[in-house]
Amino acid sequence: MPEIGIIVGSDSDLPKIENCFNILEEFGVDFEIIISSAHRTPEKTKEWVSSAQEKGIKVIIAAAGGAAHLPGVAASHTTLPVIGIPVETKISGGLDSILSILQMPSGIPVATMPAGKAGGANAALLAISILSLVNNDYSEKLSRYRKKMAEKIFDRNAELSASGYKNYIKALKENK
Amino acid sequence: MPEIGIIVGSDSDLPKIENCFNILEEFGVDFEIIISSAHRTPEKTKEWVSSAQEKGIKVIIAAAGGAAHLPGVAASHTTLPVIGIPVETKISGGLDSILSILQMPSGIPVATMPAGKAGGANAALLAISILSLVNNDYSEKLSRYRKKMAEKIFDRNAELSASGYKNYIKALKENK
Amino acid sequence: MPEIGIIVGSDSDLPKIENCFNILEEFGVDFEIIISSAHRTPEKTKEWVSSAQEKGIKVIIAAAGGAAHLPGVAASHTTLPVIGIPVETKISGGLDSILSILQMPSGIPVATMPAGKAGGANAALLAISILSLVNNDYSEKLSRYRKKMAEKIFDRNAELSASGYKNYIKALKENK
Amino acid sequence: MPEIGIIVGSDSDLPKIENCFNILEEFGVDFEIIISSAHRTPEKTKEWVSSAQEKGIKVIIAAAGGAAHLPGVAASHTTLPVIGIPVETKISGGLDSILSILQMPSGIPVATMPAGKAGGANAALLAISILSLVNNDYSEKLSRYRKKMAEKIFDRNAELSASGYKNYIKALKENK
Amino acid sequence: MPEIGIIVGSDSDLPKIENCFNILEEFGVDFEIIISSAHRTPEKTKEWVSSAQEKGIKVIIAAAGGAAHLPGVAASHTTLPVIGIPVETKISGGLDSILSILQMPSGIPVATMPAGKAGGANAALLAISILSLVNNDYSEKLSRYRKKMAEKIFDRNAELSASGYKNYIKALKENK
Amino acid sequence: MPEIGIIVGSDSDLPKIENCFNILEEFGVDFEIIISSAHRTPEKTKEWVSSAQEKGIKVIIAAAGGAAHLPGVAASHTTLPVIGIPVETKISGGLDSILSILQMPSGIPVATMPAGKAGGANAALLAISILSLVNNDYSEKLSRYRKKMAEKIFDRNAELSASGYKNYIKALKENK
Amino acid sequence: MPEIGIIVGSDSDLPKIENCFNILEEFGVDFEIIISSAHRTPEKTKEWVSSAQEKGIKVIIAAAGGAAHLPGVAASHTTLPVIGIPVETKISGGLDSILSILQMPSGIPVATMPAGKAGGANAALLAISILSLVNNDYSEKLSRYRKKMAEKIFDRNAELSASGYKNYIKALKENK
Amino acid sequence: MPEIGIIVGSDSDLPKIENCFNILEEFGVDFEIIISSAHRTPEKTKEWVSSAQEKGIKVIIAAAGGAAHLPGVAASHTTLPVIGIPVETKISGGLDSILSILQMPSGIPVATMPAGKAGGANAALLAISILSLVNNDYSEKLSRYRKKMAEKIFDRNAELSASGYKNYIKALKENK
Repeated sequence: MPEIGIIVGSDSDLPKIENCFNILEEFGVDFEIIISSAHRTPEKTKEWVSSAQEKGIKVIIAAAGGAAHLPGVAASHTTLPVIGIPVETKISGGLDSILSILQMPSGIPVATMPAGKAGGANAALLAISILSLVNNDYSEKLSRYRKKMAEKIFDRNAELSASGYKNYIKALKENK
Repeated sequence: MPEIGIIVGSDSDLPKIENCFNILEEFGVDFEIIISSAHRTPEKTKEWVSSAQEKGIKVIIAAAGGAAHLPGVAASHTTLPVIGIPVETKISGGLDSILSILQMPSGIPVATMPAGKAGGANAALLAISILSLVNNDYSEKLSRYRKKMAEKIFDRNAELSASGYKNYIKALKENK
Repeated sequence: MPEIGIIVGSDSDLPKIENCFNILEEFGVDFEIIISSAHRTPEKTKEWVSSAQEKGIKVIIAAAGGAAHLPGVAASHTTLPVIGIPVETKISGGLDSILSILQMPSGIPVATMPAGKAGGANAALLAISILSLVNNDYSEKLSRYRKKMAEKIFDRNAELSASGYKNYIKALKENK
Repeated sequence: MPEIGIIVGSDSDLPKIENCFNILEEFGVDFEIIISSAHRTPEKTKEWVSSAQEKGIKVIIAAAGGAAHLPGVAASHTTLPVIGIPVETKISGGLDSILSILQMPSGIPVATMPAGKAGGANAALLAISILSLVNNDYSEKLSRYRKKMAEKIFDRNAELSASGYKNYIKALKENK
Repeated sequence: MPEIGIIVGSDSDLPKIENCFNILEEFGVDFEIIISSAHRTPEKTKEWVSSAQEKGIKVIIAAAGGAAHLPGVAASHTTLPVIGIPVETKISGGLDSILSILQMPSGIPVATMPAGKAGGANAALLAISILSLVNNDYSEKLSRYRKKMAEKIFDRNAELSASGYKNYIKALKENK
Repeated sequence: MPEIGIIVGSDSDLPKIENCFNILEEFGVDFEIIISSAHRTPEKTKEWVSSAQEKGIKVIIAAAGGAAHLPGVAASHTTLPVIGIPVETKISGGLDSILSILQMPSGIPVATMPAGKAGGANAALLAISILSLVNNDYSEKLSRYRKKMAEKIFDRNAELSASGYKNYIKALKENK
Repeated sequence: MPEIGIIVGSDSDLPKIENCFNILEEFGVDFEIIISSAHRTPEKTKEWVSSAQEKGIKVIIAAAGGAAHLPGVAASHTTLPVIGIPVETKISGGLDSILSILQMPSGIPVATMPAGKAGGANAALLAISILSLVNNDYSEKLSRYRKKMAEKIFDRNAELSASGYKNYIKALKENK
Repeated sequence: MPEIGIIVGSDSDLPKIENCFNILEEFGVDFEIIISSAHRTPEKTKEWVSSAQEKGIKVIIAAAGGAAHLPGVAASHTTLPVIGIPVETKISGGLDSILSILQMPSGIPVATMPAGKAGGANAALLAISILSLVNNDYSEKLSRYRKKMAEKIFDRNAELSASGYKNYIKALKENK
């Protein structure tokens, strides 16, 4: 039974938020993905969103770009927490997506994430931090995840000290 | 029987597009106004928009600000032409409203108007130019409207020549 | 006899709005294309636009980029509905084109479309929705077009369910 | 015992998010407010945020403007959900606040709210929707709140129909 | 016989470029002002611009705001130097006006001035520097104007030294 | 003897304004190019600019990017007309260059050109239109240049009519 | 003997950076103020800046708005640290000033401060932190200044706790 | 013993500010580099920054992108001068990084550098100009560095004169 429901406006958005799926899986969170547009399939969007809560879904994640109405439209059909991911576009790198998701009117909140790669990852992590309220297991996993992130940085510092910045940068460039 | 249906997300938008109503009235166009939010009353919005065509409505005008989803959401429920008016905000004077209305995905068009006062007027005039396709009377009225606009400018030029620019500017400032 | 007249400021804009032509053709709409600049060939632009209505043209579509005056200049010579397509540029992905087309003064409306690929498609679809007022055939085709768009999304969902998101994303990436 | 912890970077931000406090109170949510800057009192900020969870706080709300680091800094000291409210500024109405809060790196999520008045209200409502996971009472209150918002719009429509748009707008202007 | 022709899109622009007129007068330059819109009176605009050269006009100054097409449209009808003044708007203080005037296509130059008050003054001064090519008198006046500007700054420094910055600022505030 | 002086802040700007040189050459205008930075070689910049007039230079063209001070700094050392070309950057495609050149204070005008390729071409053409005041030959060449631009568009229309839009677009794509 | 030299492009900038003077005075730093424009008095600007070091000045602070060249021009005439303060304008609240000061080319650094009120204060504090390298007294005063800022926040928290947020906000509003 | 401490939020930022390291080395400045994130390793960041002064570090350089809190967070833990380098992003080329670093509140200054390549170089040069206050050797090296930059430009001018602009541009293009 999925705890998280993920809705994207177009299947081309799926690879852009792949790290969202990867993190949820890494944490052992059950999730469901649906492709449904706010504008092309408004009925399906409404049905899926409004039935999410009774299916056991606790948090909804919606990704969209341009006039990115999907997160806001999802939020209009549920009182579950809705997390919005702005997909990058050519308009200043996604300023249209950002403002369309962020500037919701008073009364219907959408938790907006950063544009680009960090958006998918942080949507997953915010959803997990919300689920942590009812599942202490997630809370502990989150703490461990943070520790691992820190350790990775400590390791890199050790490596940087050991090899010197010139070799380190050279290695970075070669691995690109 | 209304030919034009106007939907605003909040009653506070009504005074901002007052010139829309004034122009429609001046042209003798029958219109209907409804307050319905894309997010707070999605059901009512859908019902009103999807039944518009059978009520005889030929063009829909939707005004909204911020994450201005209303025009796009309206367009998702009808194949009638939908005209969107971006209401001014503090974000660069309404850049959020503009991009939320303008950057619609392929398949669901919204005819976006300028932000601010010109938005209401031009929404009315575009709607009338569309109605002109089935009502020659409107077409003639539009031509006369254009002529009147031009004549007003000619009159002002005459006045400017007669009084000189100093007196003209002085008078403008006093009437402000 | 063309029902739609399309004007572009430069022939390099033609490939950028190719989907506009494709959709009009798919709907069986007769259209005429002209290359004429607002600035380099103002006379030709004026002549073509002002004689459009008597040639039977019912909607004008104009595409331009940068200081994209063409749609507004076209609108100054006709009372037919004018649809403007902002061509993408390097200034924030086309913010100059968008604002030059969108921010028309009160009295001379231009129906502005999104920048980029969606612009061409939606210009065609808005024009067809306007023509639907006098041609019920188009109205039915529009409804079918919407249904087909929705079905495509349903099919993709079925595929996503069947293959799982990992395989689906993998396939997407390989087809790119 | 507070369920929500609210942190603002400067006491001048308090009146700007007053509706946040009002809504929490209206829903009967216990909350704690602290003034602590990310930059001027980093130690206090860290202490308060890192001890929040053991005090029973379940969601943190942080408001800040300009280089609005407070929500992100708070998120760096806890795995609780952190909601960020961008305070309006002169830079495009708060684009600096928005981007400083929104564009968090992968790993440390902040749920960003709209700039301006809606930010405070939606932060409260998102926090309550998160608390609803563990308190069904809040969930029901949220549904009632949504219904009340919708009814208010229905009432305004009735009033608009009854009085006509001219009188309605006149009344709106007089009450301003 | 006017040496400079000034065209504004709306008479409300006249007070905004008043310093343009004042400077031209101060330099003893003969000029002609016309109100004519690119969109509302395209014919008059064309006639006036295209006959400017044979009337002896040597430089054209055009001011407009929003989708500020007037300078570009003027430039399309003449090979005289055209100077454009972007009138301030609510969109980022006039970014729409700036980009609509500035981003002209290759082939039709417009010399764009700053938005706001400096725009009117600098349009006059640029026009005079152009006229200086054929009138040495203007060239000398320009040099004197520059000297006067510098002297004004030297005087203020003297005053600042004499009174101290506290009294100087106090006096500035009182005179506001 | 050069009539036009061109100054660039860095030799890497030279290829970016190559069409400026080409057009000047095509019109038979004598010009001089110097590489001198507003910040790295302020003395040389000042010397070259302030001695330009006595060398017979009548118009100065300055190109720079980023904090593009060169055109404004040039204008501070001469009363000759100064034309500024904003070089494209990563900040919104050159918004930093545009605003740094455009927003000059009252008293010191810079004639700002579009960012990108059109900037170089239009700087040359504006300079030539200014020189036309003292050289009727240039004026006639400018008219012929305009006519040639128009004819090129007419030719393309003929080609488009003859081959049909599909073949025309196909050919365009192949030649890219 | 002044340790800090402050240069503003216009005397109208003086009140906008008043807190800069106040803080320097509070710390007992000797400073000198000059009004000199990058464009209107380039010679005086150059003289003052290039003789600053031998007069004992250790840091230069320059404030300007719009095409804010003054800090960069100052930096071109000295190797002393130059701090730039962007004065607020109508273009997005000062984005033109910010980018003109910030986007300096490689080789000539300017330490850019925030736009608006914080700019003046932080310029003073950064200058003092630089002077602290040679004057331990300033270093201690800086630490005390930071402590005082923190204590002010602690005091406000105490007040907020004591009076409750409603009374606190009420008091804030009344004192405005 | 390091005089300069450099902190980056992610090791991927190291190659982006490589010229910072190169210039410091060229000037013979001893420096230390650490990778530590404001959000992922807030403790390490705090420890390293707050112990910098007693280790003899005199200036801190911090580079970060997106919600680039690192320079501001560093500044909150020290009274040493802090220089911030905005790393380029997709949001208008780094406008998010710029504003997050620049718009610091009153009291905690960060000396902001340009986005992109110039940022690293200018951070090094500003740091060296600060160190020059206590080390006259650096001051002389800075003057020589400036002279070398100027001479490089003079050499290029000589080359340009010798080869002509066509050959010069051709050579530039070939070397790219």
